[in-house]
Amino acid sequence: MAQMNENYLKLPGNYLFSEIARRVNEFKNNNPEANIIRLGIGDVTRPLPQAVVEAMKKAVDEMGQPETFRGYGPEQGYDFLLEKIVEHDFTSRGINISQDEVFVSDGAKSDTANFQELFGTGNILAVTDPVYPVYVDSNVMAGRTGFIKENNQFDKIVYLPCTEENGMKPSLPTGKIDMIYLCFPNNPTGMTLTKEELKKWVDYAREHKSIILFDAAYEAFIQEEGVPHSIFEIEGAREVAVEFRSFSKTAGFTGTRCAYTIVPKDVKVFDTKGEAHSLNPLWLRRQTTKFNGVSYPVQAGAAAVFSTEGQQQVKENITYYMENAKIILNGLKNAGYKVFGGTNAPYIWLKTPDNMGSWEFFDKLMHEANVVGTPGAGFGANGEGYFRLTAFGTRKNTEKAVERIITKM
Amino acid sequence: MAQMNENYLKLPGNYLFSEIARRVNEFKNNNPEANIIRLGIGDVTRPLPQAVVEAMKKAVDEMGQPETFRGYGPEQGYDFLLEKIVEHDFTSRGINISQDEVFVSDGAKSDTANFQELFGTGNILAVTDPVYPVYVDSNVMAGRTGFIKENNQFDKIVYLPCTEENGMKPSLPTGKIDMIYLCFPNNPTGMTLTKEELKKWVDYAREHKSIILFDAAYEAFIQEEGVPHSIFEIEGAREVAVEFRSFSKTAGFTGTRCAYTIVPKDVKVFDTKGEAHSLNPLWLRRQTTKFNGVSYPVQAGAAAVFSTEGQQQVKENITYYMENAKIILNGLKNAGYKVFGGTNAPYIWLKTPDNMGSWEFFDKLMHEANVVGTPGAGFGANGEGYFRLTAFGTRKNTEKAVERIITKM
Repeated sequence: MAQMNENYLKLPGNYLFSEIARRVNEFKNNNPEANIIRLGIGDVTRPLPQAVVEAMKKAVDEMGQPETFRGYGPEQGYDFLLEKIVEHDFTSRGINISQDEVFVSDGAKSDTANFQELFGTGNILAVTDPVYPVYVDSNVMAGRTGFIKENNQFDKIVYLPCTEENGMKPSLPTGKIDMIYLCFPNNPTGMTLTKEELKKWVDYAREHKSIILFDAAYEAFIQEEGVPHSIFEIEGAREVAVEFRSFSKTAGFTGTRCAYTIVPKDVKVFDTKGEAHSLNPLWLRRQTTKFNGVSYPVQAGAAAVFSTEGQQQVKENITYYMENAKIILNGLKNAGYKVFGGTNAPYIWLKTPDNMGSWEFFDKLMHEANVVGTPGAGFGANGEGYFRLTAFGTRKNTEKAVERIITKM
Repeated sequence: MAQMNENYLKLPGNYLFSEIARRVNEFKNNNPEANIIRLGIGDVTRPLPQAVVEAMKKAVDEMGQPETFRGYGPEQGYDFLLEKIVEHDFTSRGINISQDEVFVSDGAKSDTANFQELFGTGNILAVTDPVYPVYVDSNVMAGRTGFIKENNQFDKIVYLPCTEENGMKPSLPTGKIDMIYLCFPNNPTGMTLTKEELKKWVDYAREHKSIILFDAAYEAFIQEEGVPHSIFEIEGAREVAVEFRSFSKTAGFTGTRCAYTIVPKDVKVFDTKGEAHSLNPLWLRRQTTKFNGVSYPVQAGAAAVFSTEGQQQVKENITYYMENAKIILNGLKNAGYKVFGGTNAPYIWLKTPDNMGSWEFFDKLMHEANVVGTPGAGFGANGEGYFRLTAFGTRKNTEKAVERIITKM
């Protein structure tokens, strides 16, 4: 008799964004005339940069000719892309990362969800709260947690609250943590850490031989000087950190799918005898066994992001979105909302008025202003009473949404 | 201290195809002038059908315009593709599969490797021997097996020998098996089962409440009548089977990446209380949490495979490859080799002469004939003494390879 993975039974209902989609569809069916503006799921609206479009079409043409056709590529990505990633994202910032420390994939969601497979099920993990749900859910599925408690937190996970009181910056854990998920610029709060603040985490990890799983999917949105774009800007991080990067938000790849993960050879995990094993060959083994690389035309498109034209086009998009962020941030501030983020990240994290519940605010906003956002409670217990808006809408919709929030709520 | 997943330590050396690539590269470095013909890794050589190329380029153009840009798609695939899959592959064969039983993914390798996550670690699994290594390795990594034994088989896995004696057709297990991996047309032997033979497996699974993980990646190569293209042609299979399909070999997508998995709602797994849970929503939960869908241009290309032009172009490619298969099969037969497969599958499984070891034959073939194949031992203990050649080369190379094998070996 085939037994199920009972860890799945610990998961509450739907994945957050599926639940939002469900509610929106229901609302649309009942109100077909409503002009809904979506500032919820964190999906971009600007098209692919033309440099990417041209490169992808060229690559597709190559796939149609026997002389230039490409079959299976290297699971970890083509050299032409790895080279550009290393040069542009690391060497240019004085960071020493080699090509075989870069693993191209179909998405940071896949990578952040799959990476936990390399760890024993007995590890204790810490996440910030609020947090991107994938870090938690993937570990629940793997059996690294206990059951969910009344406050919607899982037993055996250490939650690091990000609250108004600590300015959305988590404190170091007091106990010993083995796996630490950090995301900066943060999803959902939009807040960042300084180099000094991030260094404390690296030092903690070095002291406790823990691993930091660092999600840098939003680094391209950093506007201010002194905010680290990569955890590898911090001394010693090569020994304790893995970094997730993505083309999704940076270059409009949410529907095109390409990301990459940096696994320095210095990062070690331990077996029960205390012997050290490098994570890099373990991830290579995982990827070569369970993944077959990213579509060649997609990788060709991703490489074009690093061309001169590509960089300029990407910069224009980011400027556009960050202008949206400013419009939301200032609009809500002026209307008396308490807001976080939006300066170095495409997310604005607002406190709901009158201590309204997150889902209540979600429903009210959808019904009265026809604006869809993401309920903070979906990101964790400490997200209750908060709400996330994204800067990824069109300018017109962003302005209209802010106006509606101010006038109708 | 971060503990590793120690199951990784049970895995022997490299993933099979990485090891082959390593040996070939070494040989090429030492013999730069050698004209190597690769009939090894199972990679196709015919370019993408023009219908696919056109559809992908159109989709890329859409991604470059704000009005037609697509961001995140549904994790399980776009309706326009699901519809075509259901209609073409199932409805047209009188099989009842609904759209929400189809899950589009980036590859059958990912799906066959990931699907085991839905099962408890206590399940007993059976695989044929020889077998596609991903089924085994992914279960080793998940801790569903013991250690590797001297004969290269893992403890706790039940191996079902496919030998010359049983005509490469596995016998039903004698004990109770929970998860059964079957692949027909088979990789690596190229052999198929009749409907009556496959029905015995479905009946076994229904009797024991086990699940059949059926890999049908090569169904498009079936030439003879009466060979089932889908396990769902068998009565009762909807209750016990999951089927993996792929565009890789069918339509030249090895470097473009698209596949799909059928999870009927009737298939149930059980919790420790004996309560039944449908696999379909569990896989949906897995995919929505850990995967973000296949690139839109790739899905558009996959949908074009089902167009009239696409179908014709795909058929031409398959005819071409199966003609190659015939050339290899007949050439080797005439030269006195004992050969299997090649009639309804793009693989030819040959017995090495004089009981030569598989890797020994690999090295000899590479050094003396400059032909690369796949050592049977890489597929399991019962593959020792066998060797796999693929029909995916060009016509010229295929003919040359056969000639070289006959004259130089």
